[in-house]
Amino acid sequence: MYEERVRRVLDAMTDRNLTQMLVSDPYSIYYLTGVDVAPDERLYVLYLRQGRAPRLFLNRLFAANARNDVDTVWITDDGRPLDAVIAAVDPTWDLGIDQAWPARFLLPLMEELRNTNCILASDCVDAARGRKDEHERQLMRAASEINDRTMERVAAYIKEGMTEKQVVAFVNQCYEEEGCEGPSFDGIVAFGPNAADPHHIPDNTVLKAGDCIVVDIGCRKDHYCSDMTRTFFCAYVPPDHADIYDLVREANEAAERLVRPGVPLRKLDATARNLIASGGCGDAFTHRLGHTIGQTCHEGGHVSADTDVIAAPGMIFSIEPGIYLWEEMGVRIEDLVLVTESGCEVLNRVDKSLRVL
Amino acid sequence: MYEERVRRVLDAMTDRNLTQMLVSDPYSIYYLTGVDVAPDERLYVLYLRQGRAPRLFLNRLFAANARNDVDTVWITDDGRPLDAVIAAVDPTWDLGIDQAWPARFLLPLMEELRNTNCILASDCVDAARGRKDEHERQLMRAASEINDRTMERVAAYIKEGMTEKQVVAFVNQCYEEEGCEGPSFDGIVAFGPNAADPHHIPDNTVLKAGDCIVVDIGCRKDHYCSDMTRTFFCAYVPPDHADIYDLVREANEAAERLVRPGVPLRKLDATARNLIASGGCGDAFTHRLGHTIGQTCHEGGHVSADTDVIAAPGMIFSIEPGIYLWEEMGVRIEDLVLVTESGCEVLNRVDKSLRVL
Repeated sequence: MYEERVRRVLDAMTDRNLTQMLVSDPYSIYYLTGVDVAPDERLYVLYLRQGRAPRLFLNRLFAANARNDVDTVWITDDGRPLDAVIAAVDPTWDLGIDQAWPARFLLPLMEELRNTNCILASDCVDAARGRKDEHERQLMRAASEINDRTMERVAAYIKEGMTEKQVVAFVNQCYEEEGCEGPSFDGIVAFGPNAADPHHIPDNTVLKAGDCIVVDIGCRKDHYCSDMTRTFFCAYVPPDHADIYDLVREANEAAERLVRPGVPLRKLDATARNLIASGGCGDAFTHRLGHTIGQTCHEGGHVSADTDVIAAPGMIFSIEPGIYLWEEMGVRIEDLVLVTESGCEVLNRVDKSLRVL
Repeated sequence: MYEERVRRVLDAMTDRNLTQMLVSDPYSIYYLTGVDVAPDERLYVLYLRQGRAPRLFLNRLFAANARNDVDTVWITDDGRPLDAVIAAVDPTWDLGIDQAWPARFLLPLMEELRNTNCILASDCVDAARGRKDEHERQLMRAASEINDRTMERVAAYIKEGMTEKQVVAFVNQCYEEEGCEGPSFDGIVAFGPNAADPHHIPDNTVLKAGDCIVVDIGCRKDHYCSDMTRTFFCAYVPPDHADIYDLVREANEAAERLVRPGVPLRKLDATARNLIASGGCGDAFTHRLGHTIGQTCHEGGHVSADTDVIAAPGMIFSIEPGIYLWEEMGVRIEDLVLVTESGCEVLNRVDKSLRVL
């Protein structure tokens, strides 16, 4: 499995005339080698070179995470760990760099290798990661199945008088019971006016009748993430809020209907955005339609006016239109979709009809 | 407070002949402006320039986190957000870059500004952040007081037959009760042979009599972090493990006794390391002695053979020697220390005598 993945990245490098590349994103390294390390601020990089096995520069501190089948160069906290990487690079060829590598390593390396052209070549690995293989698709489905079950449990659990923090704690407990590594991001539960902030941090706000309830949650299970949003209402729905809900749901469903190989992702964004604008709420949809997802909740690709990416089999991303009315309320409805060979598999099954709890 | 902090950074830039700098670390931006945003993969950067107020490039998505007293340039997910930053930079001067900025922004910016010298100038802001002002010292003390109380509760809670995961859940519940934002890192609880991995991930291992118990935990309260390790034993201590415990404790205390303004941090590392080596366990102390801490648990500075940093008032770092015996056990003892104007304040007060639970 790892050999096939490395081959795909090396092929993409060949297409860009790249002989060598440094991959620093720990998730990319896991994807390509199975080595699972959270290096924090320490140097951690995989050197890819045509015709050779990948070579991992790994701090001795993470010895427990090493794999016998990975060519490993041990580095330590003492000395200058970057020197080992610089010595491995062939300075006469261009050097690909992935997007995650921070300036603290990149600028000193460029200083040392003054005549080597450093090129942002993250696409070579990101595009491979962006098209999930069958093993990954199964893991993504399993994570979203847990998320579906959890959302139903949450809908049954929420009662007037509860706080946002209580609901988030319940979500995390559900994930724990399901054997997840944990949430895939800090879950968002937002009541009433708090929901006008798409990234609201749950607090001790108490749920009142008439409030909207945005629940944006996801888990991480066996390294892969889920992410879904549903918006409920407490006790009753103010009629104008029901209209807003329907507009968001229509935008979500219209975009999802278009998902298939060959569709430009920007067309999905435009479809949802135009629909919301024609409902008079264009200014209130303040973010892009979605993001790619896999080992992390945001894998770097996005569904927006600003992308040239065309949907292809194996891609998984969110479709999450929203309308946010400042100091009043917010609605967001989000599913994950998997682009299949012939169309689209919506990974979330929780009903999207307006639901009053 | 923010003006004074910005002034310190601009002064440091003057010392390096730098007129302008991009700061991308969200914690540095919070430190310098009070704006608190977790941008994930989105562009988020503060432009510092001599003689001007800092200018923040902020995505519209985070409107709720803006501050009226900060000069803000709004960017969106559409278009090319980096263009606004490039337009603001004076291409005729060197441009400082902080350590966190990833290649996905840095390389395209360097491509556009071909004649501008990009310089790793993270020290200018990191050194300022590294010397906590009185406001920050109070927050760091408060976070460590919570951590002390929590460690005592943990020591009272742990019983033979419990799992590591249970103990971590209890720790997180304590932090919740104390009103923390949460843990400052994924807490480590490691029983017996698991403790031989310094970064063990807590699992369902059950505590048995004779096991060592490494508890390495910290909370985040009002943006600032604590971090402490204690090693206990369950029911009894094998005599050779008691010797190892004492060696680690002596190394911890010997290093802490030396902390004062003017001492090279590498001397602290050498002192602990030599003491452990003279006890015959040099190879089993596999990591550096400590790390700086503040808004994040690892702020990038470290206490190791590989640093030229000299202790100065306001610095806060960990002193955490350890001995790790593969497939057998591990001991680590860690406090945070604050370098004061005249010496050292140890922020953790939990007794370090060998304790059997």
